Amino acid sequence: MPETTGDPFLLLEVLGTIAFAVSGGAVAVRAGMDWLGVMVLAVVTAVGGGTVRDLLLGITPVSWIESPWPIAVALAAGVLVIALGHRVPHLALDSRSAVLVADAAGLAAFTVTGTFVALAAGVSGWIAVVLGVVTGAGGGVIRDVLARQRPLILVGQIYALAALLGAAVVVGLDAAGAGEGLTRWLAVAVVLLVRLAAIRWQWTLPSFEPQDGQPRDE
Amino acid sequence: MPETTGDPFLLLEVLGTIAFAVSGGAVAVRAGMDWLGVMVLAVVTAVGGGTVRDLLLGITPVSWIESPWPIAVALAAGVLVIALGHRVPHLALDSRSAVLVADAAGLAAFTVTGTFVALAAGVSGWIAVVLGVVTGAGGGVIRDVLARQRPLILVGQIYALAALLGAAVVVGLDAAGAGEGLTRWLAVAVVLLVRLAAIRWQWTLPSFEPQDGQPRDE
Amino acid sequence: MPETTGDPFLLLEVLGTIAFAVSGGAVAVRAGMDWLGVMVLAVVTAVGGGTVRDLLLGITPVSWIESPWPIAVALAAGVLVIALGHRVPHLALDSRSAVLVADAAGLAAFTVTGTFVALAAGVSGWIAVVLGVVTGAGGGVIRDVLARQRPLILVGQIYALAALLGAAVVVGLDAAGAGEGLTRWLAVAVVLLVRLAAIRWQWTLPSFEPQDGQPRDE
Repeated sequence: MPETTGDPFLLLEVLGTIAFAVSGGAVAVRAGMDWLGVMVLAVVTAVGGGTVRDLLLGITPVSWIESPWPIAVALAAGVLVIALGHRVPHLALDSRSAVLVADAAGLAAFTVTGTFVALAAGVSGWIAVVLGVVTGAGGGVIRDVLARQRPLILVGQIYALAALLGAAVVVGLDAAGAGEGLTRWLAVAVVLLVRLAAIRWQWTLPSFEPQDGQPRDE
Repeated sequence: MPETTGDPFLLLEVLGTIAFAVSGGAVAVRAGMDWLGVMVLAVVTAVGGGTVRDLLLGITPVSWIESPWPIAVALAAGVLVIALGHRVPHLALDSRSAVLVADAAGLAAFTVTGTFVALAAGVSGWIAVVLGVVTGAGGGVIRDVLARQRPLILVGQIYALAALLGAAVVVGLDAAGAGEGLTRWLAVAVVLLVRLAAIRWQWTLPSFEPQDGQPRDE
Repeated sequence: MPETTGDPFLLLEVLGTIAFAVSGGAVAVRAGMDWLGVMVLAVVTAVGGGTVRDLLLGITPVSWIESPWPIAVALAAGVLVIALGHRVPHLALDSRSAVLVADAAGLAAFTVTGTFVALAAGVSGWIAVVLGVVTGAGGGVIRDVLARQRPLILVGQIYALAALLGAAVVVGLDAAGAGEGLTRWLAVAVVLLVRLAAIRWQWTLPSFEPQDGQPRDE
């Protein structure tokens, strides 16, 4: 994904990759997986969304095969989770403030990048929004399926919605002829603000009560 | 997928898309998801099977990126489910007769279309049957995985089997040189008849007893 | 996958396909699925890993569409599982010694083939290792997700690790200029030895305790 090193946007993507990997690893720790399971969930969470986007668009080999730094970064983050998971079993890394903020940065970076990739592939605007959300939020869904949790982004938090708004900003500004740099950073700001405000004030989307003895989490 | 508007087959596909989306949304409501979760499950259930087929065949970008009407239809159906889900929480939309019939229509339309797409891609007859079943039944499997239910099509109802028979009819008539129109409607009739008869007389496939404290549903 | 019949490596792949299909079918029996569910899990477990590898690399149509013998073999194994599952409900086919050994053979064959396919596609060495592990272990993950089990390869057994070591041997020897035949059989031996030793002496990877009322299996 990153084309120019030194790009501040790259920093955002690296930060987001670390945060996504940490969230995947932390879920694996809580689910009682082994070390390799932690590594697998770290990697899958970090690259899952972009992988699904690439497959849907027909961009193959998928991006991390061509440019594998996210795998390396995610593996390093997985090692960190394993080390901390043994020393501080109930640390719940993925609900620490620092990780939540970094995760919001990742959501922003991945969503914006994903939307641009989709637009560059020539898809229509609203399909680009769909693919931007898939890029930003898809990894978390795969993580939750593998760890047998209810996909958290679908059960009340403002998460995918922040991605949706950011992707819409990208498409809107792009259609209005705004420059890519401006568009990118404005959209990142929207995702970050919405997501961080949702965490801070515990905004939720309206949701339904589970019925018929459906499993609940936590 | 639909090339000519006014095509009665298109009507079947639209009807099926609505029914599949309603079934996805209804499962999300029962699982206690939020509004966005309902929309996601509506869309994924409606387009999931065709998406997997396209990916396996290497038809990319996948069909709904090129021709996105099923996404729009599924989103509209999702909004309907949300509205009804709040007013009549225990309506169980996806077990209403009208929805079951429309779902059967969707299963028929998607399976038949999927089998034709596979044959057009030059695959052998029985692999076309496999891909037809994937197209018709795949969305429901993804829905159930995301909602953490046992994949319903694998636990006793005659569902995928109806698709299997319809796909086999397509391949058989195609090999026998029958015209596409005749083949299409005969195969649709087979899927519909088998599926509706299975619902009416509660036909089931033989199944095994869950063992060792495996989770049961409902 | 197999190019030359009479190839002893082909024998290994057929054996592995049968064992993977049996493991998928046996999980379906225990989960209380119907006959079609057993067939679906048999097929998906047998071809799932190679399918994901092909999709990630952009090798489409995926290999079993071009060369469908693994589907046929898996379906035959599924029929066997159904027959035995009704006669001997608690046989637990997938924990029989013969099936475990055949499964180890399949893990070895699929991992080695997958790593070679990735190298042939021109990916870097360590990404080839990743794709080799995906090929060998991916089918089991899909099986467990569909049967709503915790992915067994992520919760303590030495399974994916055996694949990882074998894939690393392929990449290492290939880089060192060793012939393909030697590389292939040495790597197979490594996977087999590690996996069988892990079964024999119950080697496990360090793992974490499940927290917060997470579901446990068995």
